[in-house]
Amino acid sequence: MHVLIIGAAGMIGRKFVERLVRDGRLGDRPIDRLVLADVVAPVAPTGFSGKAETRAVDVSDRAQVKRLVAGRPDVIVHLAAIVSGEAEADFDKGYAINLDGARFLFEEIRQEGLREAYAPRVVNASSIAVFGAPFPDPIPEGFYLTPLTSYGTQKAIGELLLNDYVRKGFFDGLSIRFPTICIRPGKPNAAASGFFSNILREPLAGREAVLPVSEDVRHWHASPRAAVQFLVHAATMDLAPVGPRRALSMPGLSATVGEQIEALRRVAGDKAVKLIRRAPDETIIRIVSGWARELDASRSEALGFRAEKTFDEIIRAHVEDELGGRIG
Amino acid sequence: MHVLIIGAAGMIGRKFVERLVRDGRLGDRPIDRLVLADVVAPVAPTGFSGKAETRAVDVSDRAQVKRLVAGRPDVIVHLAAIVSGEAEADFDKGYAINLDGARFLFEEIRQEGLREAYAPRVVNASSIAVFGAPFPDPIPEGFYLTPLTSYGTQKAIGELLLNDYVRKGFFDGLSIRFPTICIRPGKPNAAASGFFSNILREPLAGREAVLPVSEDVRHWHASPRAAVQFLVHAATMDLAPVGPRRALSMPGLSATVGEQIEALRRVAGDKAVKLIRRAPDETIIRIVSGWARELDASRSEALGFRAEKTFDEIIRAHVEDELGGRIG
Repeated sequence: MHVLIIGAAGMIGRKFVERLVRDGRLGDRPIDRLVLADVVAPVAPTGFSGKAETRAVDVSDRAQVKRLVAGRPDVIVHLAAIVSGEAEADFDKGYAINLDGARFLFEEIRQEGLREAYAPRVVNASSIAVFGAPFPDPIPEGFYLTPLTSYGTQKAIGELLLNDYVRKGFFDGLSIRFPTICIRPGKPNAAASGFFSNILREPLAGREAVLPVSEDVRHWHASPRAAVQFLVHAATMDLAPVGPRRALSMPGLSATVGEQIEALRRVAGDKAVKLIRRAPDETIIRIVSGWARELDASRSEALGFRAEKTFDEIIRAHVEDELGGRIG
Repeated sequence: MHVLIIGAAGMIGRKFVERLVRDGRLGDRPIDRLVLADVVAPVAPTGFSGKAETRAVDVSDRAQVKRLVAGRPDVIVHLAAIVSGEAEADFDKGYAINLDGARFLFEEIRQEGLREAYAPRVVNASSIAVFGAPFPDPIPEGFYLTPLTSYGTQKAIGELLLNDYVRKGFFDGLSIRFPTICIRPGKPNAAASGFFSNILREPLAGREAVLPVSEDVRHWHASPRAAVQFLVHAATMDLAPVGPRRALSMPGLSATVGEQIEALRRVAGDKAVKLIRRAPDETIIRIVSGWARELDASRSEALGFRAEKTFDEIIRAHVEDELGGRIG
């Protein structure tokens, strides 16, 4: 089986590739060809028994997307995106990568199928940013698309396009709406959502972290491990029961910052919690107030998607996967 | 004031132009320039005191859209579309006209504004086809976008794009979701929805009409007169109270075919009703079963949009506007 991952150099992409390389298969089919594409060519995986290729690709250039699809991959996982903050700051770039990129991909698959029968499985990364405040808690499955960012708009459009291409039989697939991924590995970053990870990852490594919001802020989380499992399941599951509505809110854990901190205390003790420094930031407080706090994910759960049920599990997954089991 | 109407040669476009020419103004501002565009140049209006121009335009050609916008109209009413059946049959054409056309328009307005401050009022025609079965009756304001046609997908994407361009301040405007327009003037056509108008228009003119569905079929209607009033109101109303969710389901009348027929009987007598011939058509029955039966339009009603409350009113509007007050 030939698997193409677009956006393979991002955090979720890298972890998904690691998983595929480790398993050597997707579901019950061995992977013999793995094509990893990103805006800068990803690092080639080590220890993969099949053929691995890495490509630098600009998905807003239709000819480049066409060349990726010309290899007729059996599974295409589309993770490439300009993130929320950058898409908001650079309107043209956000639309070029996030909207045109997805549309070119879907359209080139269709064109390939017009030449010779072809219907790959497509897994398209979407986001809870398709919803914008005000919304009920939890946001129901049937709630309308109310993005308040260009990124959310572009993701919502990608979902609609995928639904239509699937309905017309040009390929099969799903859009999956990721919760905020926590704990993100790596260094603290400037994203407004960064603190959700920072306040756990840094103290677990013995470093100080800044908390810019109050402890009663509630948000919707899943671990990197759960995110990888979402992709594996979406790439292998029976899609017949899904019906025509192909955008699924992934399961997650709705938790307050206070609940995150108490989980940290249970896993790593008071010493870790003391490394969290309160420094309220009005800008971040305002941004975060418009974010989803909880989603109804009963549809995706019924279809076999699973996420963590407690923040203790999320923290332990990080300690196992990123810290070799050791707490700083 | 300069008004541009794209799709001015269609049924609603023609009636809207007639209204503007008759009024000579839009709200409290006189119209001094009227640009009427369509895929074939519309007929120039007679009796207009200002400057009227007609243009043949392919909205899927960005350069042509750019030239329309370069005139810096104060109000742009975008009605041009490939209709549902054709967009379903010709995938490329539907996306080119309905998606690219809307996007080129919004983007050329933005580009014009980047050259020199410019923020026209845009009224974008959308459709209840953004919803697809199954849905509750009435379909709530907050129901998600579930199109089951390429046309509905393209209209939903147009709504999302408009929301984002308005949110970013590139122009101000609304998308308005028209109910099925009834009674459509003219000849019976092959559209699956044609019978809703045929069974009234033809008997009112003394001609036979075919009813392909049962009398308990319920649907969502507004008259051509109401549709024109929606456009006038959308082009002139204060948009501040609308907020960021700029797609509005227009008010309409939810009625069964049986209720339509009883209204015909009250207005035009048994003689007219006897001209309706039952000829069940399984294809049309199946198509119509997936259509919206009623929408919650309380938001647009609160914003001042109005439609007919009875089918008697809808029929009388047709008799006055199309038949010079005379029945068959």
